[in-house]
Amino acid sequence: MINTLVAKIQKTNAPIVVGLDPMMKFIPEHITKKAFAEYGETLEGAAEAIWQYNKGIVDAVYDLIPAVKPQIAMYEQFGIPGLVAFDKTVKYCKEKGLVVIGDIKRGDIGSTSAAYATGHLGKVQVGSNSFYGFDEDFVTVNPYLGSDGVKPFIDVCKEEKKGIFVLVKTSNPSSGEFQDRLIDGKPLYEWVGQQVDAWGAEHMGDAYSYVGAVVGATYPEMGKVLRDIMPKAYILVPGYGAQGGKGKDLVHFFNKDGLGAIVNSSRGIIAAYQSDAYKEKFAPENYADASRAAVLDMIDDIAGALGTK
Amino acid sequence: MINTLVAKIQKTNAPIVVGLDPMMKFIPEHITKKAFAEYGETLEGAAEAIWQYNKGIVDAVYDLIPAVKPQIAMYEQFGIPGLVAFDKTVKYCKEKGLVVIGDIKRGDIGSTSAAYATGHLGKVQVGSNSFYGFDEDFVTVNPYLGSDGVKPFIDVCKEEKKGIFVLVKTSNPSSGEFQDRLIDGKPLYEWVGQQVDAWGAEHMGDAYSYVGAVVGATYPEMGKVLRDIMPKAYILVPGYGAQGGKGKDLVHFFNKDGLGAIVNSSRGIIAAYQSDAYKEKFAPENYADASRAAVLDMIDDIAGALGTK
Repeated sequence: MINTLVAKIQKTNAPIVVGLDPMMKFIPEHITKKAFAEYGETLEGAAEAIWQYNKGIVDAVYDLIPAVKPQIAMYEQFGIPGLVAFDKTVKYCKEKGLVVIGDIKRGDIGSTSAAYATGHLGKVQVGSNSFYGFDEDFVTVNPYLGSDGVKPFIDVCKEEKKGIFVLVKTSNPSSGEFQDRLIDGKPLYEWVGQQVDAWGAEHMGDAYSYVGAVVGATYPEMGKVLRDIMPKAYILVPGYGAQGGKGKDLVHFFNKDGLGAIVNSSRGIIAAYQSDAYKEKFAPENYADASRAAVLDMIDDIAGALGTK
Repeated sequence: MINTLVAKIQKTNAPIVVGLDPMMKFIPEHITKKAFAEYGETLEGAAEAIWQYNKGIVDAVYDLIPAVKPQIAMYEQFGIPGLVAFDKTVKYCKEKGLVVIGDIKRGDIGSTSAAYATGHLGKVQVGSNSFYGFDEDFVTVNPYLGSDGVKPFIDVCKEEKKGIFVLVKTSNPSSGEFQDRLIDGKPLYEWVGQQVDAWGAEHMGDAYSYVGAVVGATYPEMGKVLRDIMPKAYILVPGYGAQGGKGKDLVHFFNKDGLGAIVNSSRGIIAAYQSDAYKEKFAPENYADASRAAVLDMIDDIAGALGTK
């Protein structure tokens, strides 16, 4: 699947991933109105609105991008109906030929990580049958529990030819509280980065590993260091756009081959119609067109920064 | 809810929590047979078996214990039907008067942690209505992202009078890989413990904070140090029983008031009928009676170690 992701990035010339992180305040009124008319102001109504909203965006942008990254928390907050909308979104994106990165940030002791890996990437055995649970192509993994919390994911990835992105340096303001602390003169995120490189050697694709890393666009200097520490890891870069990262900040996350990083934007794309840059031109009814325009502008911004325009 | 938990622990004289972490291999054949007859060898069949198995255990032990800790991964691996079984289990345990600790180990950037907190502890707004998602009483939280990944949970806890347990030193063999690394002469887990103490000061119950910590029974010496660093934090202690921890290892996790810790056992209780200690006495049909016997023995072991028999 890492080879597929790389090939799709090359084909689209778009090292970007759209974060499908729906919030009710992003969803245009015509969609919520219709969903509430059918299901009421209920969890089912919210889930229907989320699903229709996502579908509109995916239909408008799927030909431009290699991948999407639904953030499961945004669905999980609506309980079971929300998770049904997550499941429908994952399936629909895969039907549209998109690589799906489940942003789930799971991680636990060995047997429990194995269960998460089974549920999100693999197949679970029930009697003589086996079934996929959520069946994403990649998931994000939290490394705090060390190797035996991460390796069960890699085991399932080997079976399924799927991959993970391990949190190394996250994009949020307080990520440095623990991640930047110096251990023998090197910050914790570098030690985690070294482990990502070691874990990744166990499961290589053609040019890149199935074990990637998450490094926030908001910390470009650290991105440069981590790029060198993990040369074979694809870096998933959140924090572009709404969180403050810009195209020029991203250059050092990429390798000299122009590959090695994929940049996420969530709000900046999916709620583009509400932003200053697009709200004059696009009415809420045309929110998906605004998302398409925002994707094209993001591709242009990154290509400009990388010199690949 | 921390006051409720403490009161229930005092009433039962049982500082223990039963981990409802069902695996198909634990479930007696008479239960799976019946579930598969009704729903087939499907995810729904597995979920029904899990639910019936849990219900049997809860019915057999709820009067002896203050709390249960369902591990959501064990449900999530069966996709949506598995999560429906999780939801049913949480609701049923609450009906039975048990405190429910959702072992979800979530943690993300601010807005995303807020969504998890909403989904598991709080209420989500849909139009003019609001709804609980999974509605546990406590959840476990991963601290790798720092304060702005943890505080949204605390915010919801304040509104709902609920609590969290932050991962400090986990019970698994490789937990030391990052958690034990020395930063300015102190291991990372102590720095996290200090933060738990600081976060906890923001949301105090009567004698203990709503912000607790997870420290593995498998590391008793570290438990002793962390007990001093976080005097007001309730410590959730996994790793007793099947993972190797014993009653005598637990003494230093408790404060001098005999409170301050709650010890989890999962497999050792829920699959007791399969273990050497109980399998002669209990047939698979009486698995729940074996669980009750194992709870009584665990209470006795801990009371013996604490000198509270």
